[in-house]
Amino acid sequence: MIKVGVVGGTGYTGVELLRLLAKHPEVMLAAVTSRSDAGVLVSDMFPNLRGHVDLPFSEPDPAVLSSCDVVFFATPNGVAMTMVPMLLAAGVKVIDLAADFRIKDVSLWNKWYGMSHACPELVDEAVYGLPEINRDNIRKAHLIANPGCYPTATTLGFLPLIESGLADVSQLIADVKSGVSGAGRKANVAHLLCETSESMKAYGVPGHRHLPEICQTLNAYADKPVGLTFTPHLTPMMRGIHATLYAIVVDRKVDLQMLYEQRYAEEPFVDVLPAGSHPETRSVKGSNLCRIAIHRPQNSDVVVILSVIDNLVKGAAGQAIHNMNIMLDLDEKSGIDNIALLP
Amino acid sequence: MIKVGVVGGTGYTGVELLRLLAKHPEVMLAAVTSRSDAGVLVSDMFPNLRGHVDLPFSEPDPAVLSSCDVVFFATPNGVAMTMVPMLLAAGVKVIDLAADFRIKDVSLWNKWYGMSHACPELVDEAVYGLPEINRDNIRKAHLIANPGCYPTATTLGFLPLIESGLADVSQLIADVKSGVSGAGRKANVAHLLCETSESMKAYGVPGHRHLPEICQTLNAYADKPVGLTFTPHLTPMMRGIHATLYAIVVDRKVDLQMLYEQRYAEEPFVDVLPAGSHPETRSVKGSNLCRIAIHRPQNSDVVVILSVIDNLVKGAAGQAIHNMNIMLDLDEKSGIDNIALLP
Amino acid sequence: MIKVGVVGGTGYTGVELLRLLAKHPEVMLAAVTSRSDAGVLVSDMFPNLRGHVDLPFSEPDPAVLSSCDVVFFATPNGVAMTMVPMLLAAGVKVIDLAADFRIKDVSLWNKWYGMSHACPELVDEAVYGLPEINRDNIRKAHLIANPGCYPTATTLGFLPLIESGLADVSQLIADVKSGVSGAGRKANVAHLLCETSESMKAYGVPGHRHLPEICQTLNAYADKPVGLTFTPHLTPMMRGIHATLYAIVVDRKVDLQMLYEQRYAEEPFVDVLPAGSHPETRSVKGSNLCRIAIHRPQNSDVVVILSVIDNLVKGAAGQAIHNMNIMLDLDEKSGIDNIALLP
Amino acid sequence: MIKVGVVGGTGYTGVELLRLLAKHPEVMLAAVTSRSDAGVLVSDMFPNLRGHVDLPFSEPDPAVLSSCDVVFFATPNGVAMTMVPMLLAAGVKVIDLAADFRIKDVSLWNKWYGMSHACPELVDEAVYGLPEINRDNIRKAHLIANPGCYPTATTLGFLPLIESGLADVSQLIADVKSGVSGAGRKANVAHLLCETSESMKAYGVPGHRHLPEICQTLNAYADKPVGLTFTPHLTPMMRGIHATLYAIVVDRKVDLQMLYEQRYAEEPFVDVLPAGSHPETRSVKGSNLCRIAIHRPQNSDVVVILSVIDNLVKGAAGQAIHNMNIMLDLDEKSGIDNIALLP
Repeated sequence: MIKVGVVGGTGYTGVELLRLLAKHPEVMLAAVTSRSDAGVLVSDMFPNLRGHVDLPFSEPDPAVLSSCDVVFFATPNGVAMTMVPMLLAAGVKVIDLAADFRIKDVSLWNKWYGMSHACPELVDEAVYGLPEINRDNIRKAHLIANPGCYPTATTLGFLPLIESGLADVSQLIADVKSGVSGAGRKANVAHLLCETSESMKAYGVPGHRHLPEICQTLNAYADKPVGLTFTPHLTPMMRGIHATLYAIVVDRKVDLQMLYEQRYAEEPFVDVLPAGSHPETRSVKGSNLCRIAIHRPQNSDVVVILSVIDNLVKGAAGQAIHNMNIMLDLDEKSGIDNIALLP
Repeated sequence: MIKVGVVGGTGYTGVELLRLLAKHPEVMLAAVTSRSDAGVLVSDMFPNLRGHVDLPFSEPDPAVLSSCDVVFFATPNGVAMTMVPMLLAAGVKVIDLAADFRIKDVSLWNKWYGMSHACPELVDEAVYGLPEINRDNIRKAHLIANPGCYPTATTLGFLPLIESGLADVSQLIADVKSGVSGAGRKANVAHLLCETSESMKAYGVPGHRHLPEICQTLNAYADKPVGLTFTPHLTPMMRGIHATLYAIVVDRKVDLQMLYEQRYAEEPFVDVLPAGSHPETRSVKGSNLCRIAIHRPQNSDVVVILSVIDNLVKGAAGQAIHNMNIMLDLDEKSGIDNIALLP
Repeated sequence: MIKVGVVGGTGYTGVELLRLLAKHPEVMLAAVTSRSDAGVLVSDMFPNLRGHVDLPFSEPDPAVLSSCDVVFFATPNGVAMTMVPMLLAAGVKVIDLAADFRIKDVSLWNKWYGMSHACPELVDEAVYGLPEINRDNIRKAHLIANPGCYPTATTLGFLPLIESGLADVSQLIADVKSGVSGAGRKANVAHLLCETSESMKAYGVPGHRHLPEICQTLNAYADKPVGLTFTPHLTPMMRGIHATLYAIVVDRKVDLQMLYEQRYAEEPFVDVLPAGSHPETRSVKGSNLCRIAIHRPQNSDVVVILSVIDNLVKGAAGQAIHNMNIMLDLDEKSGIDNIALLP
Repeated sequence: MIKVGVVGGTGYTGVELLRLLAKHPEVMLAAVTSRSDAGVLVSDMFPNLRGHVDLPFSEPDPAVLSSCDVVFFATPNGVAMTMVPMLLAAGVKVIDLAADFRIKDVSLWNKWYGMSHACPELVDEAVYGLPEINRDNIRKAHLIANPGCYPTATTLGFLPLIESGLADVSQLIADVKSGVSGAGRKANVAHLLCETSESMKAYGVPGHRHLPEICQTLNAYADKPVGLTFTPHLTPMMRGIHATLYAIVVDRKVDLQMLYEQRYAEEPFVDVLPAGSHPETRSVKGSNLCRIAIHRPQNSDVVVILSVIDNLVKGAAGQAIHNMNIMLDLDEKSGIDNIALLP
């Protein structure tokens, strides 16, 4: 059995990670830490886990965490970077679900995240944990920067188009809609049911932290820096991201449907839908799948890509476990092959 | 008092029209018709109207309708066109909330709506009832084509930009999200709570009937035919449309905020928000307002316009009454100056 | 015009009060106070009020408040009692939407509310503002204790049965379901959308502050102290209370339908539905109505009464304005005769 | 592997059964039938199943069904009874998720279900599939009447109290709230999102089909016929039942908490919560658990029992598979040990 620690398990990413880890056939949960809730039973905070996770939250204990095979960080941004050096030194594999190691340009990271990176020397070593582009590097990695939820849906949607040089990368638009769980489990008036139910709004239009993350990944596959307009929206539901992506194709004759199907043919967690489809976020609720459809309306040169994920699974906890499975040479689908809950 | 008839009051547009008309200080409701539900009390179908609307649904009776000052059609597409000639001949003013008279090119209408127009000779006479562009014509009109919900939010959002020649009209994108009431009140598995709640999806990406309607209006203000990509989405809420609009500006120096504020300064039902705002659909729930915000993220040449309405009010019933108020020279805000319900 | 002050307008009761007062034909809003948000535009916090309420929140200023004809308190429990003596002394009429003056037995109040009452001498003078039982006293009152939301729905549902001596008052059950707005607009993890959506739960089963309030009112009409089991539930919606009330009738032959219809025949805001009805909370959303239906299933001696209100209107702000209308001898329906928003 | 057929898989019970069966380690799905949708891929109707269930719906074929080890009926009431005799004769084990075999008194069944039973001679043979009372009989059964959703939550809640003779069975009250999926997946205006969202209502107060089913079970453990008032409510959520149960205890000194804990100590799918708890339906969303809490407010003689299930799992598909596991001597938890999805 793999000995696993979870640092910071009191958010929605944390409870989802625990739900999946508790049923992972190869995993033994050694500790779930929380400074603020140490002593509280995990299942008292998250009643779905009652009978499945018997641990209390504990203070993060370096000795316990160092004895783990893998430690997941489901903490706010800026926490993992203070503990990762110690854990790596102890030979622990680390998967950070926050943003600390996602941006290679440390000064850019400092700017968007409003703090100074605590271990810039480790940033280069971190592997961006999007298996669909980095599987081989993940296999060899000690430190994984698990992608953000918006970046996962957006990047997987744009990738084949950009890898193949078929899009004008200077004018990409990502109009992306997220359920409220993406905003976290903090005491915040703005995310009360009575503030978010029965309403839709854009937010962060002037700039959102996931913009540089997406651009960094896409730039690696483009012949020039991508120009991306990224508009996140808050949607009155709990889980799910729906990315609606727009690009101008430079060659109308290419069969995009086939391009996408071939690109993802071997990927266990990307499902390219038949031509003409409109994926629903509920089709992936609780599952690790990204479902994608490709349209070119009225035969124009604008391609519209629809990409849906569960922000807490493929956009966070599920992808983190996928990374663990690859790092430890387990069956990639182990523990994350759930079927979405519908309705 | 103005004698008003409502043809086809059993849908969501109908009940909203009745809610507003019942409190309109100048209106007397003469008849609410429904072939299928004749005899049923309106307030038995719509319990909010109990104590406010005492009529039963009745068979549409030409004599009764002809005696009205104004008749509203809240019917499915294709119904109004069969009765309008008779009513106009009788001197009744008609406001059609469906699509029968929205498209000036009858062959285009026939194609998108899948039927043959019953009175093509009246199409030219109909005035497109968007007060913000057609107030003077509405004042003199006998027949109003009340705009669609998506076209209202989208057109008001794009209009100042296009009137002023500031956008590249060949590459407009409208990513538009609607509550489920936009799909109507029909027995349809696809719109059950358990099919639409907690999920987000695009639909009609290959083509939607509101596309030619929007293009027709915008073309009148553009120097060349607009190229619009229009992507509607179904959102897990009852009311509200959020249009997220993208255009490329040809001159970055223009003060778009001031442009929009000036364009709508005299409009009672368009509210341009302060720079940096993100309108929420709940801020207009039950009200006739369109609230708009303008962004140019990262100072690029892409302008992002956010435009929200209540699809049943400014996108249907409220705008229809606004048209009636103008036609009859009443106070424009009469009966439709409600404050949105929040939460 | 009546000069009105609102103390503590930053909660859901506050915004609803402002929505209604802003359209009340006899009211001029003089001040909306909030210590924590002084200086913020009311319409920046509550975007529905933009264009309708132009005031900023201000520090509570005794001079300004003393110059008002009526002051509403939409504050947390325990605030009004510190300011009411001064206002009454200045001749201002006061309506407290919180609980400070609801319980006549001060020691009982101190126990349930966990504090010492600041002006116990005024408690007797306060009139419990349920117009259906206290209209004459309200007319003469200077200080109104506006009823709680659960007590309003429950009391109106039980009242005719108990007044008439037809129920065994020793075994009453009130199973009551509330939307989340009843929990207020505080930064509280427990009321995030992701904690309350798609879930149902009872709470406060061992004891809830509204229990003594309901019992106090019902006791006045019963021949012995009522024995009430009161079970509140949190329901995944924003507005609405559905009270399902159970009592054992001591005489099966009485026509309860007629009893209720007669009891409320002259009441403008209580609507007894036809026999066999099942009221929906949406039928009163945004309106000041209480709709009631009476059942005696399978002809047994158990009567089941269904009573619905909008907790923010008839359960708070609307009833407060109803009280003001009565106190000032205005038309009782003035400003609160809205039709519910459906859907 | 166990060869399984599902008759009538197009409802919510059907898709949930398929979600669970597709991951059951011992099950091979042989056929999913639907007369109306024969030929349609199951995963085209239920997009969550794409990649997990590859079958199309097929016409019910006696040869195919007869070759199965187990056939589940997820059909409307009245269908299973026409096919069960043939299947039993062929040696197939049958689990009916509808109501055809739940009521032992056939004339009572005929009355409540409004039809004549097609095989009354098999009703006696059928075992009521509530494992917590019938495990031994289930083990030997050929035909299982899977309990209704309301009866499951209600019966498990009342059972220990009634078995122990501690309640006055003449005055039981079950106030029960269900998510909308309980109403099925039929084209019905009443269950559109816009009719059911943001609203709460009771229904069927004069009489509901689950009433005789609950009484039949409880009567078997009571010393006299139970007198039950049963009030179902429609709640604005997709999944979940919350039963709030009221009874008068005849002996206040008994430790009810211990009584319940002991009664269900060995039950894998009943979880008695610690004293003072308030279970939430979300704590069982997607799981087969029933979670129960017991209260006696203010130390009176009224006991309040809170019992929650997922109506589609413990109230339907999960319990059906539990029955299959018992009938076939598999691990009882096989395939149904999921953790609830939260949020």
